[in-house]
Amino acid sequence: MSKVVVQKYGGSSVSNTEKIKLIASKLIERKRKNPKIVVVVSAMGDTTDDFISLAKDITKSPDKRELDVLMSTGEMISASLLSMGLNSLGCEAVSYNAYQLNIKTSGIHGKSLIDDIDVSKINESLDSGKIVIVTGFQGLNDEGDITTLGRGGSDTSAVALAVKLEGICEIYTDVDGIYFTDPRKYSEAKKIKEIEYEEMLELASLGAQVMHSRSVELAQKYDVELYVGLSCSDIEGTYIRGSREMKLEDKVITGLATCDEDAAITIVDINMEDVSKLFEKIAVDGVSIDMISQTAPFNGKVNVSFTIPKDDLMECERIVSCFVSRESIVIDEEITKFSLVGLGMKNTSGVASKVFKIFSDNNIAVKLITTSEIRITCAINSSSKEVAIREIAKEFNL
Amino acid sequence: MSKVVVQKYGGSSVSNTEKIKLIASKLIERKRKNPKIVVVVSAMGDTTDDFISLAKDITKSPDKRELDVLMSTGEMISASLLSMGLNSLGCEAVSYNAYQLNIKTSGIHGKSLIDDIDVSKINESLDSGKIVIVTGFQGLNDEGDITTLGRGGSDTSAVALAVKLEGICEIYTDVDGIYFTDPRKYSEAKKIKEIEYEEMLELASLGAQVMHSRSVELAQKYDVELYVGLSCSDIEGTYIRGSREMKLEDKVITGLATCDEDAAITIVDINMEDVSKLFEKIAVDGVSIDMISQTAPFNGKVNVSFTIPKDDLMECERIVSCFVSRESIVIDEEITKFSLVGLGMKNTSGVASKVFKIFSDNNIAVKLITTSEIRITCAINSSSKEVAIREIAKEFNL
Repeated sequence: MSKVVVQKYGGSSVSNTEKIKLIASKLIERKRKNPKIVVVVSAMGDTTDDFISLAKDITKSPDKRELDVLMSTGEMISASLLSMGLNSLGCEAVSYNAYQLNIKTSGIHGKSLIDDIDVSKINESLDSGKIVIVTGFQGLNDEGDITTLGRGGSDTSAVALAVKLEGICEIYTDVDGIYFTDPRKYSEAKKIKEIEYEEMLELASLGAQVMHSRSVELAQKYDVELYVGLSCSDIEGTYIRGSREMKLEDKVITGLATCDEDAAITIVDINMEDVSKLFEKIAVDGVSIDMISQTAPFNGKVNVSFTIPKDDLMECERIVSCFVSRESIVIDEEITKFSLVGLGMKNTSGVASKVFKIFSDNNIAVKLITTSEIRITCAINSSSKEVAIREIAKEFNL
Repeated sequence: MSKVVVQKYGGSSVSNTEKIKLIASKLIERKRKNPKIVVVVSAMGDTTDDFISLAKDITKSPDKRELDVLMSTGEMISASLLSMGLNSLGCEAVSYNAYQLNIKTSGIHGKSLIDDIDVSKINESLDSGKIVIVTGFQGLNDEGDITTLGRGGSDTSAVALAVKLEGICEIYTDVDGIYFTDPRKYSEAKKIKEIEYEEMLELASLGAQVMHSRSVELAQKYDVELYVGLSCSDIEGTYIRGSREMKLEDKVITGLATCDEDAAITIVDINMEDVSKLFEKIAVDGVSIDMISQTAPFNGKVNVSFTIPKDDLMECERIVSCFVSRESIVIDEEITKFSLVGLGMKNTSGVASKVFKIFSDNNIAVKLITTSEIRITCAINSSSKEVAIREIAKEFNL
């Protein structure tokens, strides 16, 4: 018996009735191959933004419970329209919402987590040959109030359904897959055919916007195969799986992500014991520190560098200046975090040395470095970004 | 203990966020006098029309189950916004939908009837001092699918809640009460302060658009006091009650309704036995016949006149011509149905003769007449309408 296919369509894929009708006709084609299809829809195009501005017209800080009620209607609208589209083409379909599937969530309004879904209605409908449409992004809390799932919510709804239905999950969006690096920044970037959860998570956490880490983590936890592709297109997208066959000559590096949103702070000659106090103070303020590097102590003093989001720079500078004089603080806003991700790094030695050689051959100064088993991240001069991407791509045959 | 007040606001009363905020502030004032308030809201302004055109973009005949899902979101939007408005002004409020109140309905999608409402959540919230907002116009069927109630639906939701909560019901709309006759047609028309259910039902069935018969019938059945008035205004509206004190010099006639939507068909010399067959055929076609008058039989033949909606005229003519020749059919499109309603007619003799005298004094030909205990309806020439209203108003001191 063929597996249940859970498809998810993002807001831009259902932004008008023409697109919804197109999805309906594509679903009917697909049903010939895969008779059991569940579709998770986001709200149409700008609906969510429209709702937020309606709420803001009422009050600057709308009640969170009621904001979730408002938001949840967006997916009900698109789900009912897609179901109408399918029914009008002679394909029986039915839409279900959070109440009908008892999508239990916990946590706070606007950021809830899915606890469970009752898929009995879905299975009945699938067994009777219907396509099932489910409103993404929403659930219910213990009081029976509507909740929403926050960023990446509809993707998470789709993966959760695939878990419960023991199916596969296809995420359709406005990009045709996961790329080695952002194709808008580097036009020669190649698409990745297959990527492991872990690699995808490293890329997602580094700012690759296609998939939110949350849904990838859920897929990894229950080993649900993910596919990311362009909606209503035959262009092959990217598969995200638990393990992929590593070929002898497989690429060592799967992906490359860059991030220009951070600034680096370097503190010269700070007392060793003040370092942990400093980081504690910064954490209390809700500023997330990313890359940290520290020199060996000399006369009880060390040099420390770290990166923070540029938005938090002023606040962070204020905190640092409580520990050292202004002259000891060096701020660098012209950095790019440059990350290479690849399972191949686990087994292939010398990746880091190759990277450093490329950087030094091209006079690219590496300011900070952090690594994991499958990732190398360097902070380099923003002006060197283009050269770095080109030379790395050449060397690793991307 | 003061009674629960159930208020209902129509689409034009909540058509934008400014109006919603105004309602919120008025509710807070009102809560000082009546601590327990439940508010039923319709969808904002043109939302319903917008949804219908969205659905029509998808298909000419949208699936009825899904159309109800789509429609029901309109009330969720306005309910959440009003609740946000109240909460932002420091007044605790909570919105509930059909699922949360288990609003059970039966019948078909788009025209469902309310069977029951579970008001326990409402009572809990009222007891804790909250204003409760309820999505009107919607319910659930036995399958747990969303249904909508059809025309007059939100008024019916409000009355049903007033029944279950043993409260009173206030319908707020864009007119400031029930008038003796349509003030748009007759500018001197006076407002009715108090009217009985029965009178209101006769007026509603005659085309007085303010209240749908359905909600008035429900109020009558459970003796719920209704009030109809302008939203956010101090102008006194109209009370609809089970009985009103009839004063000695009270008006005999409470209301006057006119309707120009019908045409009269007269059939000359039709066989007696064909009359019932004719009416049966017309009924099968879904055409509703209103006023019927028949002459005494002569040689087994009779003359029959009746009124039908102008829209059904062609279809009706086709059916009639199956029974008699074209020459025997007389069609009159220039009629106005002119109805007088008043409980006072029950006890006052001679109302009909007074009406006929006015008509004859003013050369107004009465083409058809039907009467009930509290109503007289005449079909007159449309051109005589203005004169008839003026003279009747004068005679009966309206």
